Amino acid sequence: MKVNGKWYRAVWMEESDVCMIDQNRLPFEFAIHRCKTLNETCVAIKDMTTRGAGSIGAAAAFAMAQAVIEAPIDNFDNYLIEAKKLVEATRPTAQNLFYAVERVYKAASKSQENALKEAQSIADECAEDGRLIGEFGNYLIKPNMRILTHCNAGWLALQDYGSALSPIYAAQQSDKNPFVWVDETRPRNQGARLTAWELFHNNVKHKIIPDNAAAYLMRNKEIDIVITGADRIAANGDSANKIGTLSRAIASRYFGIPFYIAAPLSTFDLSLETGEEINIELRDQNEVKMQKGKDNNGNWHEIYTAHTHSEVFNPAFDVTPAELITGIITNKGIIKANIIEIKSLINDGL
Amino acid sequence: MKVNGKWYRAVWMEESDVCMIDQNRLPFEFAIHRCKTLNETCVAIKDMTTRGAGSIGAAAAFAMAQAVIEAPIDNFDNYLIEAKKLVEATRPTAQNLFYAVERVYKAASKSQENALKEAQSIADECAEDGRLIGEFGNYLIKPNMRILTHCNAGWLALQDYGSALSPIYAAQQSDKNPFVWVDETRPRNQGARLTAWELFHNNVKHKIIPDNAAAYLMRNKEIDIVITGADRIAANGDSANKIGTLSRAIASRYFGIPFYIAAPLSTFDLSLETGEEINIELRDQNEVKMQKGKDNNGNWHEIYTAHTHSEVFNPAFDVTPAELITGIITNKGIIKANIIEIKSLINDGL
Repeated sequence: MKVNGKWYRAVWMEESDVCMIDQNRLPFEFAIHRCKTLNETCVAIKDMTTRGAGSIGAAAAFAMAQAVIEAPIDNFDNYLIEAKKLVEATRPTAQNLFYAVERVYKAASKSQENALKEAQSIADECAEDGRLIGEFGNYLIKPNMRILTHCNAGWLALQDYGSALSPIYAAQQSDKNPFVWVDETRPRNQGARLTAWELFHNNVKHKIIPDNAAAYLMRNKEIDIVITGADRIAANGDSANKIGTLSRAIASRYFGIPFYIAAPLSTFDLSLETGEEINIELRDQNEVKMQKGKDNNGNWHEIYTAHTHSEVFNPAFDVTPAELITGIITNKGIIKANIIEIKSLINDGL
Repeated sequence: MKVNGKWYRAVWMEESDVCMIDQNRLPFEFAIHRCKTLNETCVAIKDMTTRGAGSIGAAAAFAMAQAVIEAPIDNFDNYLIEAKKLVEATRPTAQNLFYAVERVYKAASKSQENALKEAQSIADECAEDGRLIGEFGNYLIKPNMRILTHCNAGWLALQDYGSALSPIYAAQQSDKNPFVWVDETRPRNQGARLTAWELFHNNVKHKIIPDNAAAYLMRNKEIDIVITGADRIAANGDSANKIGTLSRAIASRYFGIPFYIAAPLSTFDLSLETGEEINIELRDQNEVKMQKGKDNNGNWHEIYTAHTHSEVFNPAFDVTPAELITGIITNKGIIKANIIEIKSLINDGL
């Protein structure tokens, strides 16, 4: 996607550096964050300088490429095994991360060059997967539809195009005039900060809402369809995504609104029978207690917005059971969220 | 309730001044806000220096008492009619406000003294209603129960004791060891700021969660019962409460968890057949885009936490249909949310 007339991906490699759009500074500053080492890239994934299933996958692939570059010849295998553990420990829920790490790790057994190529392929495929999700998802979007989305599953999250937002960008290109209700997405406000920023720069009509207002809009018949991304999808279709997705799925069912997940095949994890087995990341309580942003004079501050002496419970994801999912928009087509369709798609697609 | 060993109500009158605990500064500062005129009291209600169904009602009653004191003898009736309009325009959804304004307005036709007495009665009744809600609601709470609540329906919201929190305080007094999951309650964070502060000072065990995490906890069987307040209840039991309540009610139904509303009889509005007729207040978009709080050095800042160029839609309340409400805990007992039980209760109770 373009920012100020220049084409960007969310994450990329320049020689041995991993570069990424700093998503923690958006929408207040557009800045490039440069990670010179495997360790720096792991910190950047962990602290969400880059985030979103696909971009985590790409960053993890590039982190492994850095490991391959850094690894001493006499300790190559051990260094890579340790690197794999390090990267995998950053964000435990994101399937794309494990998928990417595994692929680069395997490729490295052949040659360093092969590993670097594999990492780049993962990033390129991720972008292309997003484009295809947009093509398929566009079939679901009728003119002037009002779409609710949660968190950010746009090009920042998937290198280019996006997952949940890609069909919306495609609909916009097809002059369907889509309108997007953007969930704020507490506690890290990826909707209010990132999705709103993306949509604004792509001239897509939208309004931010507090997460609490989604059911109100559904009840008032102001939402025609819900599309969110996913971080890991089990074999039966149960889907982990940003905390709050489950709540939107339940409300969609109650009000009879179609609820779609958009995700590339790399997000499916057939080793898990159901969503019960998905490992949910718990994050620091200060993500909820504190907020960081700029004041009217452009100065950054971090402030408390909660009672400081109370504890916080802060799970990063929840699991939406397959029965609440109308369909899954993938890079190979739209399927039902059940084991037969998922297995046949994955077997054909990979 | 006591703060630092001294007994307080949320709102009270001192001669012709209306005093209130400044709820916008909590939990960072405990300060008393003093309104010297009707106009100042209206501003304080509008900007939520005091908030919560009952406290809005008490503040509105005292505002009308100020109007009676301020009214020139030769223009007494007109002044009071204008004052009534002014107060009623501050928070259109809160039934307690209209109920209180009406009662003081009527009392003023007899004498100034009578109006002041009526205002004080409304505040006193509100506190006593909260106490009774606690007595009845306590029957629902079993030992070690884990209760989810939304927004703040504690003593700050109802002068003393509270509505949704009053049964929890009663359970705590009965050594039932209740545990409370506190919804953050975006956009104004009344849960994270006010409910957490109240529970902490009453030694009730609790944890704050992002609103998005409530369904996650329900799915994991970590919530035994949901209790929230209400701002207006229609004759059929449809209940308006803080935005996000509807979402919790729908999720409670999906997971089979009892969902209760706690409210005094003064919150019922039998002039409305259903919740469709409840006027929902829309509030300023900067409530969502900006956050105010203190940094680590104790300095106040107001910062942006959203894309500034995007618009926000910010409804303050939503309506939970009666069919999702397990029961309503009132100051006269616990009833089903249907027209027969509501009408018989109101006719007996008022």
